[in-house]
Amino acid sequence: MKCKRCRGKAVVQVRQHNAAFCRGCFVFFFQRQVQRAIERERMFTLDDAVLVAVSGGKDSLALWDVLIELGYRTAGVHLALGIGGYSRRSTEKTEAFACRRGVRLISVRLDEEDAAIPTLSAFTNRPACAACGTSKRHHLDRVAFEQGFSVLATGHNLDDEAARLLGNVLHWQVQHLAKQQPVLASTHERFARKVKPLFRLSEYEAAVYAFVRGIDYIIEECPNSVGATQLVYKDVLNRLEAVMPGTKLAFVNDFLRTGRAAFATDGAGLPQTCAGCGMPTFASLCSYCSLLREVESKRARFVVPAAGTAQ
Amino acid sequence: MKCKRCRGKAVVQVRQHNAAFCRGCFVFFFQRQVQRAIERERMFTLDDAVLVAVSGGKDSLALWDVLIELGYRTAGVHLALGIGGYSRRSTEKTEAFACRRGVRLISVRLDEEDAAIPTLSAFTNRPACAACGTSKRHHLDRVAFEQGFSVLATGHNLDDEAARLLGNVLHWQVQHLAKQQPVLASTHERFARKVKPLFRLSEYEAAVYAFVRGIDYIIEECPNSVGATQLVYKDVLNRLEAVMPGTKLAFVNDFLRTGRAAFATDGAGLPQTCAGCGMPTFASLCSYCSLLREVESKRARFVVPAAGTAQ
Repeated sequence: MKCKRCRGKAVVQVRQHNAAFCRGCFVFFFQRQVQRAIERERMFTLDDAVLVAVSGGKDSLALWDVLIELGYRTAGVHLALGIGGYSRRSTEKTEAFACRRGVRLISVRLDEEDAAIPTLSAFTNRPACAACGTSKRHHLDRVAFEQGFSVLATGHNLDDEAARLLGNVLHWQVQHLAKQQPVLASTHERFARKVKPLFRLSEYEAAVYAFVRGIDYIIEECPNSVGATQLVYKDVLNRLEAVMPGTKLAFVNDFLRTGRAAFATDGAGLPQTCAGCGMPTFASLCSYCSLLREVESKRARFVVPAAGTAQ
Repeated sequence: MKCKRCRGKAVVQVRQHNAAFCRGCFVFFFQRQVQRAIERERMFTLDDAVLVAVSGGKDSLALWDVLIELGYRTAGVHLALGIGGYSRRSTEKTEAFACRRGVRLISVRLDEEDAAIPTLSAFTNRPACAACGTSKRHHLDRVAFEQGFSVLATGHNLDDEAARLLGNVLHWQVQHLAKQQPVLASTHERFARKVKPLFRLSEYEAAVYAFVRGIDYIIEECPNSVGATQLVYKDVLNRLEAVMPGTKLAFVNDFLRTGRAAFATDGAGLPQTCAGCGMPTFASLCSYCSLLREVESKRARFVVPAAGTAQ
């Protein structure tokens, strides 16, 4: 098997693009794919201050690595979610990456703020993943606004987008379908533009890129993700991909090109301002402030002021 | 496990409805589901002459059986497709069913008309399933028109509809999505209304119904269907259904309730009349007449008038 670009010995096969590459040319291919996505979808330019949400996993670190290599103005933001050893190891990998590259990393320690995911989940009876999603969205938006970033980039890859699309389609969530796109324009002064530069690159490609570039990322999955619906969708899409290579890419591409227009409406209108934290919301209180209020009220009810046991 | 209806011993479990039934109550349940679909979707009434397309498989024979039991005015139409022993056995099962029930069956022998599927496929280089689809649509429409039926009913079940929907969604075939519904109104004087009364009943339910009712149907699949994309989609949907029972039903129901509206447009307009056969078409010649023309021209080119061998 020969490298499509330099005709040397290929070591990476990219079935969905019907191509194979040597190590160096794969890095070139991957970076060029990211650059094209940024330019074609008008995600941002070299002048924009881009905040990259980094979890410590392969996708977000690969994304940050590419953006640094391409010369974009970036800083990373990492949320220490307080999910035991998994979160500790994620934070270590992220900090080591930033340190080695000499780039700015903003760390938010939710565990020290007493807003760790297990706490939020336990006090509100919500599934950990629901509490985590709400918390992540809030803090990423907040940091981008407070630190003056106009763009928030996440490492969502093709597999993530295809799985999300399949979930939205299986339940015909038309409002979610209307909003599923690689660039979400800012609809409030406190919302940065949200972009997904890896949306056409698969999980496999991101993993190969991280490996070839020597990025030390956290391989283990979040312990809360076991049995997650998203993983079932990914499994099913992988089965389709195995029989019909290119299915995932066509599914997402054709949606953006043809399908999405059918759902694009003015939607829920513009967001207002949360009475709690000042961030955008469609209710009087944003989801995160509602979550925190619930935690506070449960705490007040269950924790006895003097030394004693919870009822 | 107790029967949901009579509290007797249940022998059939219907997971997507979270119910179980004894034999008698399952038959009642199945027939009532069909009746509700017919009435709620306004498919037809007791006054309509309904032509039922019967292949000899479980779905179409189960449908015909239910319609007879519910007192509708029906006749069957069967196409002998000429796909070797498979077609011969399908025809035998269908004729035996009609004979035993004492109902009218219209048989169309495509193999004797020299329009057997293997011939059409070989002379036009089209996949057998493509030629078969075109041929079936043409002859079913033709027979319904010539014999004065206002309604054409087919045995498409929930699995068929969900698989078709998944295929249309994976490629965002918006024109096909606009037309995917259990009732297709007549858009031409030679088009009967097309209805799918089993669209909310699964393949499993249809098989159980056929078994319980003692219907002798052809179990083997068409030899051309091996490796068909539709079967890959069904497999994938079955995997989702196993993890999340009710997925298929929700997928199809929510599409009809919420999703489809997004695609419903005036579409391709009204059909014209085919210059070849007089049936409706969106081109000057309908797909079937185009197919036959292609066969004729290939025959003229390749078959030497005198005794000889094809080039």
